[in-house]
Amino acid sequence: MKVIRSREEILSFSNKCDKEIGIVPTMGNLHDGHLKLVEASLLNNEVTIVTIFVNPKQFGPNEDFQKYPRTLDDDISRISSLEELLKNKDNELIIFAPSSVEEVYPANFNTVISVKGLDNTLCGLNRPGHFDGVCTVVYQLFSLTKAKRAYFGLKDFQQTLIIRKLVKDLLLPVDIHLIDIIRDEDGLALSSRNKYLNVDERLQALTLPKRIKNLEQLVKESGISEAMKKTKIYNKESNVDYFHILDSSNLSPVSNDTCEVVIAGAMRFGNTRLIDNTLVKINA
Amino acid sequence: MKVIRSREEILSFSNKCDKEIGIVPTMGNLHDGHLKLVEASLLNNEVTIVTIFVNPKQFGPNEDFQKYPRTLDDDISRISSLEELLKNKDNELIIFAPSSVEEVYPANFNTVISVKGLDNTLCGLNRPGHFDGVCTVVYQLFSLTKAKRAYFGLKDFQQTLIIRKLVKDLLLPVDIHLIDIIRDEDGLALSSRNKYLNVDERLQALTLPKRIKNLEQLVKESGISEAMKKTKIYNKESNVDYFHILDSSNLSPVSNDTCEVVIAGAMRFGNTRLIDNTLVKINA
Repeated sequence: MKVIRSREEILSFSNKCDKEIGIVPTMGNLHDGHLKLVEASLLNNEVTIVTIFVNPKQFGPNEDFQKYPRTLDDDISRISSLEELLKNKDNELIIFAPSSVEEVYPANFNTVISVKGLDNTLCGLNRPGHFDGVCTVVYQLFSLTKAKRAYFGLKDFQQTLIIRKLVKDLLLPVDIHLIDIIRDEDGLALSSRNKYLNVDERLQALTLPKRIKNLEQLVKESGISEAMKKTKIYNKESNVDYFHILDSSNLSPVSNDTCEVVIAGAMRFGNTRLIDNTLVKINA
Repeated sequence: MKVIRSREEILSFSNKCDKEIGIVPTMGNLHDGHLKLVEASLLNNEVTIVTIFVNPKQFGPNEDFQKYPRTLDDDISRISSLEELLKNKDNELIIFAPSSVEEVYPANFNTVISVKGLDNTLCGLNRPGHFDGVCTVVYQLFSLTKAKRAYFGLKDFQQTLIIRKLVKDLLLPVDIHLIDIIRDEDGLALSSRNKYLNVDERLQALTLPKRIKNLEQLVKESGISEAMKKTKIYNKESNVDYFHILDSSNLSPVSNDTCEVVIAGAMRFGNTRLIDNTLVKINA
């Protein structure tokens, strides 16, 4: 399996490549959720490029950029275990793991891409600039790889919405494919940040998926307004960043036009911030 | 000559077109400076698309978006006079004049592209958000036309620098060509905004190119520090927005590494703000 470390090499590859390329952008420390994305790409593309890049632009000054887990050797071996899924011998599975930040953002790089309007709620509020960093790196990775399809996990629901808007607004020639959240047996959504949790915190963290599940039941059985009341109670707790129920098409408050809601939550356990969500169709 | 008015039609054209496309982005009210850009494109491209679009995103709330001169019929006839320059009968000269803002920015368009670091001086200071609007529209026009080459006038020097940075940072597949300032016989740089000037103001406006010329002579004959002293005197006047002498490669203060300076000025005559500049090579 080819591992590409430089900007020059990925550009040389993608410029020459005449096959359809699927990209799976990741920050590494891969878990089964990431691998599902890779599997989906392998099914649909002759070439799959998994990118592994801890993007400094999407971390705030007080966030975990420095300590974000970097496990390239493990990541490479996890991805290479999927090579057996290549559908024929001409297909390729490639890792693009830039050896430094400059391989993605060369010296003096100074352009920011922002999708407005979708970032003033949920994670956007507590992480100013985060989604500008996401949009900018996603744009760069699309340009460098010339991908035709891109695979993202629904755990970062707000991110998937913003990236779809980015692609639509800028007419990017990339189809976005969204893949369901993968959970541990006890219900906790897989996340590279789960590694930060100690045993007690790992146990407490189950509160997050349980509450999402409770809110889902409330929406289905008692209606949105009952579920909203519950979020207000949750939102008073000190380790809760937010629980919100919003129109899943645009993150606006639920209205008569809403066909589907996203129930989204973010909580802190020790120093670790985790997010989770689920989508619920509602009947008009 | 084909005049395209809708997003759908320009996309359908550019998606099918297998020839190299040159784009000349304008806001209309064309003068000989614009026509020079069109001529340059006709020489180098099988297809030239002149875009005519008064871009609301690059105007501040108190600027002249509403009254900016819109003269589409005149513009069309001026451009069609250049058809005789088409080098062979398969070549094409096309106007893309979106019939509304939505043809460039569809409903809910909400993405902003910003090049940082070059917009905190000269026109960027007095026109906050202006260059974000320029970058965003230029990006859109490049996407809609799929141009391979783009032609810009050096009168908006800061703009040309920002667009070149945009193209470099985002790896846009467009070559940027810069064309010299065209002046009236008395020295005033051509600008669509010259139309706003009454007879007195038109006379006063010559101060701008004269000062640029004076500063150029000072740089050449007495050195940069003498010229800088002069800009300080000019900058005290109430109708002067700025006179600056900066490194032309990055708009930083002149340093030992500077090979070329830009002498740039902006002044107001009545309600009309005009800009001008010149480039001067300096010997290390």
